[in-house]
Amino acid sequence: MAGSSFGTLFRITTWGESHGRGVGVVVDGCPAGLSLNEEDIQKYLNRRKPGQSNYTTKRQEADVVEILSGVFEGRTTGTPISLIVYNNDQRSKDYSNLMDIYRPGHADYTFDKKYGLRDYRGGGRSSGRETIARVAAGAIACKLLEEMGITVFAYTKSIGGIGITKENFSKEKRDKNALFMPDEKAFEEAKEYVEQLITNGDSAGGIIECQIEGLPVGLGEPVFDKLSANLAKAICSIGAVKGFEIGDGFFATYSSGSMNNDAFVRREDGTIGKATNHSGGVLGGMSDGSTLIFRAGFKPTPSIARKQHTINRQGEETEIIVKGRHDPLIVPRAVVVVETMAACVLFDLLLCNMTARLDRIKDFYVKKDSIQS
Amino acid sequence: MAGSSFGTLFRITTWGESHGRGVGVVVDGCPAGLSLNEEDIQKYLNRRKPGQSNYTTKRQEADVVEILSGVFEGRTTGTPISLIVYNNDQRSKDYSNLMDIYRPGHADYTFDKKYGLRDYRGGGRSSGRETIARVAAGAIACKLLEEMGITVFAYTKSIGGIGITKENFSKEKRDKNALFMPDEKAFEEAKEYVEQLITNGDSAGGIIECQIEGLPVGLGEPVFDKLSANLAKAICSIGAVKGFEIGDGFFATYSSGSMNNDAFVRREDGTIGKATNHSGGVLGGMSDGSTLIFRAGFKPTPSIARKQHTINRQGEETEIIVKGRHDPLIVPRAVVVVETMAACVLFDLLLCNMTARLDRIKDFYVKKDSIQS
Amino acid sequence: MAGSSFGTLFRITTWGESHGRGVGVVVDGCPAGLSLNEEDIQKYLNRRKPGQSNYTTKRQEADVVEILSGVFEGRTTGTPISLIVYNNDQRSKDYSNLMDIYRPGHADYTFDKKYGLRDYRGGGRSSGRETIARVAAGAIACKLLEEMGITVFAYTKSIGGIGITKENFSKEKRDKNALFMPDEKAFEEAKEYVEQLITNGDSAGGIIECQIEGLPVGLGEPVFDKLSANLAKAICSIGAVKGFEIGDGFFATYSSGSMNNDAFVRREDGTIGKATNHSGGVLGGMSDGSTLIFRAGFKPTPSIARKQHTINRQGEETEIIVKGRHDPLIVPRAVVVVETMAACVLFDLLLCNMTARLDRIKDFYVKKDSIQS
Amino acid sequence: MAGSSFGTLFRITTWGESHGRGVGVVVDGCPAGLSLNEEDIQKYLNRRKPGQSNYTTKRQEADVVEILSGVFEGRTTGTPISLIVYNNDQRSKDYSNLMDIYRPGHADYTFDKKYGLRDYRGGGRSSGRETIARVAAGAIACKLLEEMGITVFAYTKSIGGIGITKENFSKEKRDKNALFMPDEKAFEEAKEYVEQLITNGDSAGGIIECQIEGLPVGLGEPVFDKLSANLAKAICSIGAVKGFEIGDGFFATYSSGSMNNDAFVRREDGTIGKATNHSGGVLGGMSDGSTLIFRAGFKPTPSIARKQHTINRQGEETEIIVKGRHDPLIVPRAVVVVETMAACVLFDLLLCNMTARLDRIKDFYVKKDSIQS
Repeated sequence: MAGSSFGTLFRITTWGESHGRGVGVVVDGCPAGLSLNEEDIQKYLNRRKPGQSNYTTKRQEADVVEILSGVFEGRTTGTPISLIVYNNDQRSKDYSNLMDIYRPGHADYTFDKKYGLRDYRGGGRSSGRETIARVAAGAIACKLLEEMGITVFAYTKSIGGIGITKENFSKEKRDKNALFMPDEKAFEEAKEYVEQLITNGDSAGGIIECQIEGLPVGLGEPVFDKLSANLAKAICSIGAVKGFEIGDGFFATYSSGSMNNDAFVRREDGTIGKATNHSGGVLGGMSDGSTLIFRAGFKPTPSIARKQHTINRQGEETEIIVKGRHDPLIVPRAVVVVETMAACVLFDLLLCNMTARLDRIKDFYVKKDSIQS
Repeated sequence: MAGSSFGTLFRITTWGESHGRGVGVVVDGCPAGLSLNEEDIQKYLNRRKPGQSNYTTKRQEADVVEILSGVFEGRTTGTPISLIVYNNDQRSKDYSNLMDIYRPGHADYTFDKKYGLRDYRGGGRSSGRETIARVAAGAIACKLLEEMGITVFAYTKSIGGIGITKENFSKEKRDKNALFMPDEKAFEEAKEYVEQLITNGDSAGGIIECQIEGLPVGLGEPVFDKLSANLAKAICSIGAVKGFEIGDGFFATYSSGSMNNDAFVRREDGTIGKATNHSGGVLGGMSDGSTLIFRAGFKPTPSIARKQHTINRQGEETEIIVKGRHDPLIVPRAVVVVETMAACVLFDLLLCNMTARLDRIKDFYVKKDSIQS
Repeated sequence: MAGSSFGTLFRITTWGESHGRGVGVVVDGCPAGLSLNEEDIQKYLNRRKPGQSNYTTKRQEADVVEILSGVFEGRTTGTPISLIVYNNDQRSKDYSNLMDIYRPGHADYTFDKKYGLRDYRGGGRSSGRETIARVAAGAIACKLLEEMGITVFAYTKSIGGIGITKENFSKEKRDKNALFMPDEKAFEEAKEYVEQLITNGDSAGGIIECQIEGLPVGLGEPVFDKLSANLAKAICSIGAVKGFEIGDGFFATYSSGSMNNDAFVRREDGTIGKATNHSGGVLGGMSDGSTLIFRAGFKPTPSIARKQHTINRQGEETEIIVKGRHDPLIVPRAVVVVETMAACVLFDLLLCNMTARLDRIKDFYVKKDSIQS
Repeated sequence: MAGSSFGTLFRITTWGESHGRGVGVVVDGCPAGLSLNEEDIQKYLNRRKPGQSNYTTKRQEADVVEILSGVFEGRTTGTPISLIVYNNDQRSKDYSNLMDIYRPGHADYTFDKKYGLRDYRGGGRSSGRETIARVAAGAIACKLLEEMGITVFAYTKSIGGIGITKENFSKEKRDKNALFMPDEKAFEEAKEYVEQLITNGDSAGGIIECQIEGLPVGLGEPVFDKLSANLAKAICSIGAVKGFEIGDGFFATYSSGSMNNDAFVRREDGTIGKATNHSGGVLGGMSDGSTLIFRAGFKPTPSIARKQHTINRQGEETEIIVKGRHDPLIVPRAVVVVETMAACVLFDLLLCNMTARLDRIKDFYVKKDSIQS
């Protein structure tokens, strides 16, 4: 089956392997008229670029994006936007020893069983490089949301259980450290923790939180395409994600109805708000006008610099030391992946929502003077 | 937009409101040749039927399913199976006072803003009765999986933080108590907790875990249609779910690579297994042959028997006491919903997986002698 | 695979067999706020009802539609609309002799080979009764289009080569005769032709033309979801259709560019029009503001009252006389099927088109005051 | 909306404009294990390459395809295959005069109205170059079908009404002349006709027929995804196609049931065949084991070397002479487009068909020894 496409009206289709010619994405359904150039996308890609700190892979990739279609004289035309990022620094021979062996925690075994063969170089299609295509596409979604006054902000909430505190949190601090933790104190602690793991040839996991402001009420479709459901799929489709929660999430299971319900209140400007936001901005699967808040839990990077017990293609037990240049910690580089995937979901649902009411559809066509006899 | 359909090849489309004529589902893509009758489906519906204990709504509904199409002489024909459950016990006037008021924690406000009007009787489309259609469709998926030797088993893992222990856990115990907790001791504690809440006019949340055994390796599609991603969407599309995790889930974020990686081992029968199962049965988004394990976190039922602060349609602050007959605890009745939604995802991916390899496709058509000149 | 759903945003899912409990459809994505009752749908169903003339089956079916969901207090709510028509006059034993035999021109053989079994009563899922569900769903699409000032009008253009002439054509005449031919003279001739065939136990085919007025410019999506392509699929999915053409259709293959191109002209009201309409209202796959015109070619009904040579399930040659009550001519009853299927395509593309331009999306959300912080 | 993707399981997504960086396609859902290299694809592209005769545009494009992903060591891996063809010979200034003017018969006007702006260089996305992506993707489908013993063969059936005759028809002759007409006599006549039109600065249309042999019985899904319906959409989505018919097509509307029904017969090898093939290989929307035959009608190329009356962006009447290098006849180059689009439909339905029967699904998984506990 397919499986490389995501979205209904704003629809992205990604392709590419870690050590092939490159990775890319086709964005179909981007509305016409958005001002767009490579730099708009590049700045998002730069946030996930490897080689930026001790906590990420040493692999050096320029990861320069090219726009191949869909933009004319600086504006999107409504036709599919094809984006490509060529692979440069391919040290494939690092992986030749993996041809016949299954790395624990990786997709080697499952790929081999499913397809009968696999591109064993650097994880192939299951490599983290696959997320380049997501970020490139999502950068466009982010820009579209900005035009609507909607902002998406993700950050590292915790590393190995070392979390930021509400008191120290401030958005401005996020980009000040290599872990993208908007809390200096937590960053210092987490840094130490990670460095210890690196010394031991080990790796860490962590949690990313994302906050979206400015959403209209009603995004998301009842039943299967709930805002929360589509976000859950988008986020859990990112490699290494093992958990997703929205609002109070699993914590809500400890709460009671009287504590967890958010009372509706009348805001000073006459609009409807909520006294609290345990729901995380979603009621009945639709945005409720409050800040949308969700979290993604990432497992520790499976590539570690330690000898591990495993099996080879012939079914024999053996040991492996994974070479190559890997992230001891995938979370910091995943922050922008979470942000951009969320943006794809939100803009898609924003488009879908336009057809919910007949009066607005009529209004849309009549006001636009589009009906001609 | 649509949003009432789910699945790619095994595709379900649900309809119906709480206080309308009934609820139903069309199952398209069910393969021909499955022995199927109403009883096969009814036994799943009976597990979510209201009025079965003190911990669920007193509303009495027979919830009898009828098969309207797609079955001929006791076997599925490959054409769409239409299932209907009529609503019987409709005390709509219980809800007349909700016409103009938004219940905290419910979808009243978001529905009204999105559509400009809503069926205010008992939650309408956002009612828990919507899950009848999921369970009816998923019962068919469960039966199909059984034919493949795959079993899906969900149970209440915790209520308000009171959880079962590994030691006491035993599948046989699940159906022995009204909370579907397969641990008597935990059940006794949880029971007390819930009864206390009921006394206070309050409600509880909890966690459901699901275990699937017998899966072939390789189900799930790389990138967006990962087994974990599709499960996440299915589960988070169930009303009241605020969190989803697979395998060690959020706990994995505290772990390290060396602890979290599951070593591959050779089983006695020569097949490949894993020494541990932190992954929860998924590697690279595909089933890895181990038990698939995931959890869903449910918020406390928002309908509580207490006065709550809120807003009416006119934007004025007011207070509300939600009448009607509600579950102080949605978790027990949701166990079968989780099970059947998981079954839908799994059978769908099982079908999708059949086209992964050219040699098997050729084998399929040649062996079946289907090609005629 | 599925295959019982059609449409992207306005999405219909049909079910039901000829001699089962009934046939039905779920309409998902109908916008909220449309005034709708059973009568709105019934009047379309009545146009395809059997037993209305000598030229259609004697089978008597009331074909009464019931709305099971999605409508509240006379208005659509935005949730799925479930429609059902129960089968009444089921003389299944008429078909018992068909259990083991393949009728020429029918789907008996292909169903049996594909699924390994089939509901042999009256064609089962491949019966013309399947179109009831299309008409019921399309009636809603027609009503939605009316609200937008768009009218869809289909009629019998020819029967067995006997066609109406441009001079005699007048819309008012269509419903004046049993063949729905808006040309009395052609009707008289066709009537004679059909009666002759009936006498001979034979059947006739014909062509239906459809004209749509009032479309905005730009409906349809470039490349695969062209207006013409989606219409072609919709129309060719109707049983017995063997050909589809738009505008001048196959006749255009005899023409030259200088004759076939339609010159753009300025209308008196300042809007842009075309001097001619060889294109049939579609340019580059999008509506061009002129009348949309397409035609569907129907083969003669395969059920004839004559002995035919065929094969049985055991692969033996044999002869068959098809009993049961069949239409000697499917065209008249198919007129409303063509009309309603076209309406489904058009309203779906009308919704899809709303997201084409960023300025209009911004306008939509800002003007509606839907964005709240 | 999107609209640049086609197919369910074998799914292609195209991108690119006439005078942008290039055109390309992502093929998702290609099974693993197919031997594939650039040459396999290039030979199909060469058949649509411009500049090959007097009857096609003089534009010289190498149209060299590159495989960017999805193939490893000469075999497909089951991951998306990204193909790109760069544009070389871009004489964009030929089009500067078209910036503000709407060419009759082209998509200029509809694009402008839909999107508010357009890439006016050479038709942009609506250019015939868009079909490069279809052919590249379809070449893979053709190779997959070959592996299944299925052959797809399209050819020019008529030009401006000058058609080949059954007697003279022979497949071998097709590639012997520039019009791809497998009948020398018809070719000579058509050649003269086209040369006359070229002299007059005019253009011609024509009909392409396609024959597919070796199909298993049962491809296609009842109701909306009929083989005939999906083919109709695929073919009518090709620019300039105005008509589609299958088997006897519109001619069947003149026939009677007794003449049009194909009697089933027992072949010498014991399999079931048909005495005639009026149905064109489709019964009830599914392949019936006979040769699949369909036709596509192409309008004359709208770009002609004559002065034409039209309107500019400002709504003023004006005249235009279309410069640039255009095909006086699109049909010959479209032959391979029809062939490859048909292949995409057929291979997709061949995959979809694998899930029709439970016994075969069980057989598939059990025999493959894929189920592990």
